Amino acid sequence: MSSLFGTTLRVSIFGQSHSQAIGCVIDGLPAGFKLNEDALQEFMSRRAPGQNAWSTPRKEADAPQIVSGLNDRGETCGAPLAALIYNTNTRSGDYDELRRVPRPGHADFTAWAKWHGSQDVPGGGHFSARLTAPLCVAGGIALQLLAQHGIRIAAHVLQVADKKDEPFDALVNSPAANDHLNEQMDALQSGWKSRSFPTIDNTAAEHMKDAIAQARKQGDSVGGVVECVARGMPAGIGGPRYDGLQGSIARVVFGIPAVKGLEFGTGFDVASMTGSQNNDPYEIRDGMVVPTTNNAGGTLGGISTGAPILFRMAVKPTPSIALPQQSVDLEEMREATLEVRGRHDPCVAARAVPIAEAAMALAILDSWLTFPPSSSEWT
Amino acid sequence: MSSLFGTTLRVSIFGQSHSQAIGCVIDGLPAGFKLNEDALQEFMSRRAPGQNAWSTPRKEADAPQIVSGLNDRGETCGAPLAALIYNTNTRSGDYDELRRVPRPGHADFTAWAKWHGSQDVPGGGHFSARLTAPLCVAGGIALQLLAQHGIRIAAHVLQVADKKDEPFDALVNSPAANDHLNEQMDALQSGWKSRSFPTIDNTAAEHMKDAIAQARKQGDSVGGVVECVARGMPAGIGGPRYDGLQGSIARVVFGIPAVKGLEFGTGFDVASMTGSQNNDPYEIRDGMVVPTTNNAGGTLGGISTGAPILFRMAVKPTPSIALPQQSVDLEEMREATLEVRGRHDPCVAARAVPIAEAAMALAILDSWLTFPPSSSEWT
Amino acid sequence: MSSLFGTTLRVSIFGQSHSQAIGCVIDGLPAGFKLNEDALQEFMSRRAPGQNAWSTPRKEADAPQIVSGLNDRGETCGAPLAALIYNTNTRSGDYDELRRVPRPGHADFTAWAKWHGSQDVPGGGHFSARLTAPLCVAGGIALQLLAQHGIRIAAHVLQVADKKDEPFDALVNSPAANDHLNEQMDALQSGWKSRSFPTIDNTAAEHMKDAIAQARKQGDSVGGVVECVARGMPAGIGGPRYDGLQGSIARVVFGIPAVKGLEFGTGFDVASMTGSQNNDPYEIRDGMVVPTTNNAGGTLGGISTGAPILFRMAVKPTPSIALPQQSVDLEEMREATLEVRGRHDPCVAARAVPIAEAAMALAILDSWLTFPPSSSEWT
Amino acid sequence: MSSLFGTTLRVSIFGQSHSQAIGCVIDGLPAGFKLNEDALQEFMSRRAPGQNAWSTPRKEADAPQIVSGLNDRGETCGAPLAALIYNTNTRSGDYDELRRVPRPGHADFTAWAKWHGSQDVPGGGHFSARLTAPLCVAGGIALQLLAQHGIRIAAHVLQVADKKDEPFDALVNSPAANDHLNEQMDALQSGWKSRSFPTIDNTAAEHMKDAIAQARKQGDSVGGVVECVARGMPAGIGGPRYDGLQGSIARVVFGIPAVKGLEFGTGFDVASMTGSQNNDPYEIRDGMVVPTTNNAGGTLGGISTGAPILFRMAVKPTPSIALPQQSVDLEEMREATLEVRGRHDPCVAARAVPIAEAAMALAILDSWLTFPPSSSEWT
Repeated sequence: MSSLFGTTLRVSIFGQSHSQAIGCVIDGLPAGFKLNEDALQEFMSRRAPGQNAWSTPRKEADAPQIVSGLNDRGETCGAPLAALIYNTNTRSGDYDELRRVPRPGHADFTAWAKWHGSQDVPGGGHFSARLTAPLCVAGGIALQLLAQHGIRIAAHVLQVADKKDEPFDALVNSPAANDHLNEQMDALQSGWKSRSFPTIDNTAAEHMKDAIAQARKQGDSVGGVVECVARGMPAGIGGPRYDGLQGSIARVVFGIPAVKGLEFGTGFDVASMTGSQNNDPYEIRDGMVVPTTNNAGGTLGGISTGAPILFRMAVKPTPSIALPQQSVDLEEMREATLEVRGRHDPCVAARAVPIAEAAMALAILDSWLTFPPSSSEWT
Repeated sequence: MSSLFGTTLRVSIFGQSHSQAIGCVIDGLPAGFKLNEDALQEFMSRRAPGQNAWSTPRKEADAPQIVSGLNDRGETCGAPLAALIYNTNTRSGDYDELRRVPRPGHADFTAWAKWHGSQDVPGGGHFSARLTAPLCVAGGIALQLLAQHGIRIAAHVLQVADKKDEPFDALVNSPAANDHLNEQMDALQSGWKSRSFPTIDNTAAEHMKDAIAQARKQGDSVGGVVECVARGMPAGIGGPRYDGLQGSIARVVFGIPAVKGLEFGTGFDVASMTGSQNNDPYEIRDGMVVPTTNNAGGTLGGISTGAPILFRMAVKPTPSIALPQQSVDLEEMREATLEVRGRHDPCVAARAVPIAEAAMALAILDSWLTFPPSSSEWT
Repeated sequence: MSSLFGTTLRVSIFGQSHSQAIGCVIDGLPAGFKLNEDALQEFMSRRAPGQNAWSTPRKEADAPQIVSGLNDRGETCGAPLAALIYNTNTRSGDYDELRRVPRPGHADFTAWAKWHGSQDVPGGGHFSARLTAPLCVAGGIALQLLAQHGIRIAAHVLQVADKKDEPFDALVNSPAANDHLNEQMDALQSGWKSRSFPTIDNTAAEHMKDAIAQARKQGDSVGGVVECVARGMPAGIGGPRYDGLQGSIARVVFGIPAVKGLEFGTGFDVASMTGSQNNDPYEIRDGMVVPTTNNAGGTLGGISTGAPILFRMAVKPTPSIALPQQSVDLEEMREATLEVRGRHDPCVAARAVPIAEAAMALAILDSWLTFPPSSSEWT
Repeated sequence: MSSLFGTTLRVSIFGQSHSQAIGCVIDGLPAGFKLNEDALQEFMSRRAPGQNAWSTPRKEADAPQIVSGLNDRGETCGAPLAALIYNTNTRSGDYDELRRVPRPGHADFTAWAKWHGSQDVPGGGHFSARLTAPLCVAGGIALQLLAQHGIRIAAHVLQVADKKDEPFDALVNSPAANDHLNEQMDALQSGWKSRSFPTIDNTAAEHMKDAIAQARKQGDSVGGVVECVARGMPAGIGGPRYDGLQGSIARVVFGIPAVKGLEFGTGFDVASMTGSQNNDPYEIRDGMVVPTTNNAGGTLGGISTGAPILFRMAVKPTPSIALPQQSVDLEEMREATLEVRGRHDPCVAARAVPIAEAAMALAILDSWLTFPPSSSEWT
């Protein structure tokens, strides 16, 4: 099995919810890059639990300790970068019943079936959403590297329950739409501290928070959709077929717990469109070929078009709910009722926003390094 | 770049629309398996063009020639299996204009940007949907191997334009639903020759064919959704995070031209569900733990639950349409109007049905071989 | 299992000695390179059997048919390049006894043990030295690409039985030694057609041919050593530890049948040297840092030093000999005497010369593409 | 670049000589294995520096801290196992001059060339032999797993300067030779604590220690050869060509600093042997097919024969010597004389013994897991 992805930039994620530490090793980072550790920590904070009413009260500083990969000037040095986050606030006692009774919607049963009872139980072990913290360490570094090349990435909660945010203005690729998209990204990123919930439209945030609060009150949880965009990609990054941009992004995104769907550009709506509606025409702008619309979500044949890369991912409602659920006792092989205790987010969509950005950044950086724009030097 | 996927079962796809041949190399097939070449050919025929009114009139026998990988008893012999399909019916002349004017919705422009004009132009080169033929060769072999272990795979067109087929009865995992699902699969598979369009419900097929015919008449095309299911998977196949079943399927599916979205189980509908609705409870059935519903689409934490694996993929409308489109002349860097000639499907969803089955089979077989159910032998 | 290697340049080799065809797929070639098919064919001829008294009388044209990967100008087009060689001269009948009685020194028994009798028997199946033909197709293309960047590769037979050729003048890196090395390479490469045996010193060739002739007369075979050098590598290509130049070369070289040893630079002689003898001092030459000696064989820490890459590989005596040998009958599980018939080289060292060049070229090209000299663009 | 190897068992090594920590992540370990941490620590101690007169006086506890991958019973849990060793005794000050003046024989210059000055300088950074500590952590765990399947691995110093130990009795595969080999392994392993130097013959150890002491006195160092054997391998493990046992071992071995040559079985001596001498005949023993000799070193066609796997690796003299050496000043681009200070082994062969065992164990375990003996279950 593998908790590892990437071709040229290889990311290995390790740890369990309640192991001594979690972390990542990133192999293949370009050398000589001066890491901004403050900015990385700030990015990590966006994912960290325990911040507010709608996320789990478990508090973790989530301060990554970089133990290798930098030289004494704080620059990447060509060697693999390893980062650790020690788990400080573990409460294994909460999880004793779960050794016998798998939680519906979690990987408890499938891990038991796969590893014949040797899986690490507390907190969901290696399957815990906590493992998205080291993904964010790696992604946060990738974001800084991409920013140097003018690539900017942002995500927001597009939907919680039936409440919707204003979507990114990224299905059109006109100068006006591009400006508007930039404003949307500015609003999200400048304001994410003061703004308590990552939406473009503040009213939508209030509706979503209400929906989450209501679910919590009922001992239940709600799902959502996260939308993510990357601006500034030159045309020509990526490759055909199985290592294309869509596939590379998909492999990381479907490694995020709770994700059940992924679509690019117009996505599932293509089903009811005609070719003449869906095809993106080309024009010349500033001497460059540009698609004037972006139903393709910035990628054709696995390769970037130069328009924004746009994806949406569906995030299921947190499986851990307070309501009693029907499960089984694996030791006695009889049915059993489960009441999940412990600390859980009633909706993970908000915390999934930086995770989506991390996934986008890592997939793009790997594609960039594997198929560099300058790769025509040979001929 | 890479037209290659898989960990233990590695599939390499080669060829261009109008190259001398297209084909695949499959490395890692279990040895000693007696291949049924007739059944493989029959599977290939379901994807082949030129069969009827709603697919491209280009006729290709699509008869794969297996040049290595079998012993003299026709069994897999442990060596890589290579299969070729020679391109017999190539009309490069149709594509001369396309050297200068990229077709919207195709990879013509992105390939040009990536390879600085060295890409193979006729028919879309390596990006052609024709390259799904060798994927089907590999997938057709995987289907036969999986059938030996009781795994059965089928797909159908769930939607074309706004016309919908009856969905697979796979979101519930009761004995009755399982029986019904089996009947749906029987209907699709026993009847695919007589049944001119791969839907469960014949009336839906008629409506879809009408929608396609109407698009064709208007020089246009339509999109669709294909749904695919795999039955008989034991619990415990797959692995956590980036090599999980969802990610492995996604990498192949997003390598299929025209796919813009992928969802598992309940998919994007999870956004508006609560945890108590979406979680799949467990019960004991015949001494085994089984989920009673299947919103998860058969996979939790990347590992199979034992319920059917279920995915839906969105297929965009064929980009090649007869209507004039706005594009650019890459040599003169000016705008240009394009009228695509050549032979094209007004809707690729029907032909994508065996391709979806191939993708499912290859991802499952690779996962099975990488994480075999018997892998607890060590301890 | 895998007959596949490489990180960015991925080469997949397929075929069996007597399958319909053998071949390779090369994924990741730079696009826009005009292939010289005549030069490739000439390179292939150096490996081809049936040329003279000391190689197998089996005649194969070994003319590779490139079925994909080129555009209509004969340039690489970014898509995987697939090449086939059809086996024309197969005589399966020679090998019937071998289904039961494995040949000592061949992989007959190990393949039987691994695949439980499903292995392809005739000619050694996938383990046949014939499979070095597609390796040479891939390597021949890599050689042409590297030549564009000023990298030149040559090999020669350094030893057969106890007869030795003059070694490459590559352990010293002075201008005089470099000139001498160039002359040695010229002699080998300009003359390989007229020169019937690939040595630098013609007298050595005569001695080696005598040794081979004598072994043949006795129904026996002899081993040898092949030495290979690459000139013109800039410093800084390759990477640390397991993907270093030594490891990348080793993986390909140990995939060549009959190779039992590999050493770089001074090789095993380092054991009896001191650090002060073995360390290569640096000097400034033409404004560049250069090592003045080359005991390291051109690589330190897996990365090129700028001095010639130098390796030697030990090639065992052809296992197929006419003398009777002790083996077993796998069906009756009793001991049996084997007399190998069929057509075999009494010494494979001469034919291994282009194979060594191919291995060197492919490992270097993959390293170059994975760690391009321009990869500092990020910072 | 990559400090990562393996197909099913993937090992990622990180750290620099003077970074905060070094470590490894092992992905793909079978679950449910109860790790013996004492035995692991004992194995680590054999590699650790600072033990005696002929190794570096730098003292490091080398106590690996396992931060993830175990369940609360101390068993592997299916999740990646991560282990760290914090660097406690770093003296960066020793290395200031090396920022400008690369040490001959080390990777200082090649790392500078590759990373344009961003490499981590102190102690050789990621290229330090210190990085073999995490390799030994991974290898020590693999050794324990393999022992469960009856596979036993040992290595010894075969040569230092011109002093030679008794070789393993592993080129013959008779019952008597097998017994003798077992006694040799017993002697090495039972006695490694009392026995101050890892040879089979105590007298050889004394000669080698004298040679090392003499080199040290002269401010110099000496090279050596390490021989490693694995007993108990069933026939049929491994795969053809580039993922064969030889290639898999080679990739790890050539990732060990200072290794310049590798040979299997008879190794380079095959050059002067005939086929009738070198081929290993088969016989039936206890109902099993066994080769009676083992010139092949236990592998034919990349697959195990059932005889001991045997390799020898050449280890160059420690590049760090006290004698003045000719180098260059990279800032001023002028020649410079270097006198290496710091703490160094005058011969690394003794410490390379457990490293060779680790490499053997990891390559075999990966091959076993990738091509399990039970993989015929499909057919």
